[in-house]
Amino acid sequence: MQPEYERPIVTVDIVLMTIVEGALAVALLERDNAPFQGVPALIGGYVHTDEDEDAEAAVRRILKAKAGLEGLFFEQLRSFAGRDRDPRGWSVSIAYFALVPPSLLSGGTGKTLLLRPASAPGELPFDHERIVLAARERLRGKGAYSTIAACLLPKVFTMSELQGTYETVLGETLDQSAFRRKMKDLDLLEEVEGEKRQTLIARRPTTLYRLKAAPSVFDRRI
Amino acid sequence: MQPEYERPIVTVDIVLMTIVEGALAVALLERDNAPFQGVPALIGGYVHTDEDEDAEAAVRRILKAKAGLEGLFFEQLRSFAGRDRDPRGWSVSIAYFALVPPSLLSGGTGKTLLLRPASAPGELPFDHERIVLAARERLRGKGAYSTIAACLLPKVFTMSELQGTYETVLGETLDQSAFRRKMKDLDLLEEVEGEKRQTLIARRPTTLYRLKAAPSVFDRRI
Repeated sequence: MQPEYERPIVTVDIVLMTIVEGALAVALLERDNAPFQGVPALIGGYVHTDEDEDAEAAVRRILKAKAGLEGLFFEQLRSFAGRDRDPRGWSVSIAYFALVPPSLLSGGTGKTLLLRPASAPGELPFDHERIVLAARERLRGKGAYSTIAACLLPKVFTMSELQGTYETVLGETLDQSAFRRKMKDLDLLEEVEGEKRQTLIARRPTTLYRLKAAPSVFDRRI
Repeated sequence: MQPEYERPIVTVDIVLMTIVEGALAVALLERDNAPFQGVPALIGGYVHTDEDEDAEAAVRRILKAKAGLEGLFFEQLRSFAGRDRDPRGWSVSIAYFALVPPSLLSGGTGKTLLLRPASAPGELPFDHERIVLAARERLRGKGAYSTIAACLLPKVFTMSELQGTYETVLGETLDQSAFRRKMKDLDLLEEVEGEKRQTLIARRPTTLYRLKAAPSVFDRRI
């Protein structure tokens, strides 16, 4: 029989990202409890071993309870684990990133999410700045070869909105006709029949699109 | 004050890979303790909160203690966490993959590593088959844009040996002159001065190379 070691604290922490004024933003919440009570931090919490079947169930429970959000795209980044990252003791944060269209953040949940630029979220408790950095790198890496950026848009969007979102995620300007050709070649979008949108600048109503399948299905270079 | 939840078990598990007869192999160890005592499994163990500073320290301690190996390349895959993956209860495995040249596996450590094909490691306890699969995918993904494959070779190698290792990692045949040109363009290798190796098939002694820097430094597409 091997000896038992003191078990670490295990939390999940979620880098919830959206787009605000053309830039990636991270959603923070003031902490309810010590340590760092009242300080803005990543949305997160203990794994509840009595009710969470796995880490993803903990993420879904916490996003719903603390941010009033359901059905978001999220995936694991990696774990941050050690003796010094949490004053309560040896701890493991299983870190995730999640994407939400800005339009979904207006729902009243009682709690107020603070939106900060993802590139400059300010000083954060624990190692949350490092976790935000890891999320930005992952998103930029994935943005180049998946439709993940579409998770930052409502279900229905124009081609310009999609291109703008990719540009925000990748941090670079894309050529319009090359982008449209690529999207057409990849065959990931479908037109929303019978729906058009009149915009201020376009002379004709603009075609609306949606993804043919959930983003996790795709793993192809845009 | 928030309530305390029963803390999960936290282990690190390492997919230690090498090359055997031109194919990727994973190193397994028979388990010392229940559950699954005596059954071959990934090299791993509890995080020792009293001595491990972080998860990487646990990986180094376990590789040394259980496999007699030090100084290997390793990196975190992700965590596998949930109620049902370990009969002892809710558990987190912070999973890593590590690479070792076959020549280093011959050191006597008391323990015998079992080498199984990474593509068909047999039935493994816990969710270790899933972890091996994640490691194979990560290695193949990284193989395409880094010098990581060189970690499967001794410090000094021929260009043919390097190409062969890339072919094993990527699972495809590479064109010899294109590969040599690419390696030259990327400027990642240096000739080992004054050392040549006489091989059976080459008429002239073969030039030997080594990496200019550790693989983690590179993040460029081969």
